[in-house]
Amino acid sequence: MTYCVGLCLQDGLVLLADTRTNAGPDNIASFGKLSVVAPGDRVIAMMSAGNLAVTQAVTARVIDAVGLDPNEPINTLLTVKSMYEAAELVGAAVKRVYQSVAPSYNMQSFMFDASIILAGQIEGDRMRMFHIYAAGNFIEATPDTPFFQIGETKYGKPILDRVARYDTPLDGAVKLALISMDSTLRSNFSVGLPADLLVYHRDTQRIEVQHRISEDDEYFQQVRTAWSEALRRAYRDLPAPPWMS
Amino acid sequence: MTYCVGLCLQDGLVLLADTRTNAGPDNIASFGKLSVVAPGDRVIAMMSAGNLAVTQAVTARVIDAVGLDPNEPINTLLTVKSMYEAAELVGAAVKRVYQSVAPSYNMQSFMFDASIILAGQIEGDRMRMFHIYAAGNFIEATPDTPFFQIGETKYGKPILDRVARYDTPLDGAVKLALISMDSTLRSNFSVGLPADLLVYHRDTQRIEVQHRISEDDEYFQQVRTAWSEALRRAYRDLPAPPWMS
Repeated sequence: MTYCVGLCLQDGLVLLADTRTNAGPDNIASFGKLSVVAPGDRVIAMMSAGNLAVTQAVTARVIDAVGLDPNEPINTLLTVKSMYEAAELVGAAVKRVYQSVAPSYNMQSFMFDASIILAGQIEGDRMRMFHIYAAGNFIEATPDTPFFQIGETKYGKPILDRVARYDTPLDGAVKLALISMDSTLRSNFSVGLPADLLVYHRDTQRIEVQHRISEDDEYFQQVRTAWSEALRRAYRDLPAPPWMS
Repeated sequence: MTYCVGLCLQDGLVLLADTRTNAGPDNIASFGKLSVVAPGDRVIAMMSAGNLAVTQAVTARVIDAVGLDPNEPINTLLTVKSMYEAAELVGAAVKRVYQSVAPSYNMQSFMFDASIILAGQIEGDRMRMFHIYAAGNFIEATPDTPFFQIGETKYGKPILDRVARYDTPLDGAVKLALISMDSTLRSNFSVGLPADLLVYHRDTQRIEVQHRISEDDEYFQQVRTAWSEALRRAYRDLPAPPWMS
């Protein structure tokens, strides 16, 4: 499984991705699911969930131009002119990979499964975040719904539903993403650390924070402990139910 | 959808079930999913999730003896001698209903879906809680894992994973069940109030609390508000991430 969350906010972007993959409980591994290009005029990041062979093939195609038709012009996340074009590029790559594996997947009753959060900004264009589906089509985050999740989304959703807003500051959004990740880690063993964090300030075209959070990360440990204690305290402090003798 | 949670604890049982059913977003209705028998020598409660036609047929069979073969002796939750026998009775009823609908369900590519939490105590027997599956087999809660959930289980699971323990007192367990229900209500519109609460003190063979919680329930409103505020405060009080300038 996987858990990735992206927040597209007034001040910028916060993206957080776990690194665990599993093909059954006896086949657990660690693979980065966050890919970033930041050549100077743009910051574009992708987080992916689903079949790793599929999502790595998509990433190779849109970042390293692997598997392109030699007759077509080379177009990657480094050359696209806008974030919308970037989303179209990734969507098209998902469709291409689908076409290449669909016959064998169908024969083997294997499900094609890929979802991608693509976010960033190119100089002269506005900052945007997209959720790209296995069919290659996509939706965009708006101030009404400023976050997307992919993979094991439910355990970490309640805190986002309650608190995440378009005007949440970036440091607050980092806290929310970490709390959301912590809830997911605790309830689903197929989501695991380390986690990759990316923070981007709007209109800067450079990465503000790119940090790998491991089990012994001091700040994440503080967050986990403080959050756990706060929940227990909140539970204890609730008034007693009035219905009991 | 549905959300039901049952806690089987040192001091007794706490069961909470929502009442919303939906056959598509344009067909929302309210049906009780908690059934209780409490004739004096026993308290046995059932909560159900899945196809309502299936679970109501099971309930009719095990409580009202509807649909039994006239040649078999009448056996219901009111006559079984032990909780284990009660679980077997309910499991057998699930299998019977499955046999009666499987041909049409298969032809209509409709999935048979039923899960039941059965909990209670019969005089002379110990208090027990079972999770009965669509196949009619079941598992029992133990002190190691003292709660079961059915239906839309994920949103409400983190707080139980963190706090619920076998020695949690019953009033605490009521708070936990309500917090868990609140998180689920907020994140999934196909789970809805009113909710039915049942509390049972071990070895009493009588219902301690049976209460329907509606939108305007004063205590539940307090819990929702206090919990929401506590989460926001906990989020605010977390130290700022050290990685940002």
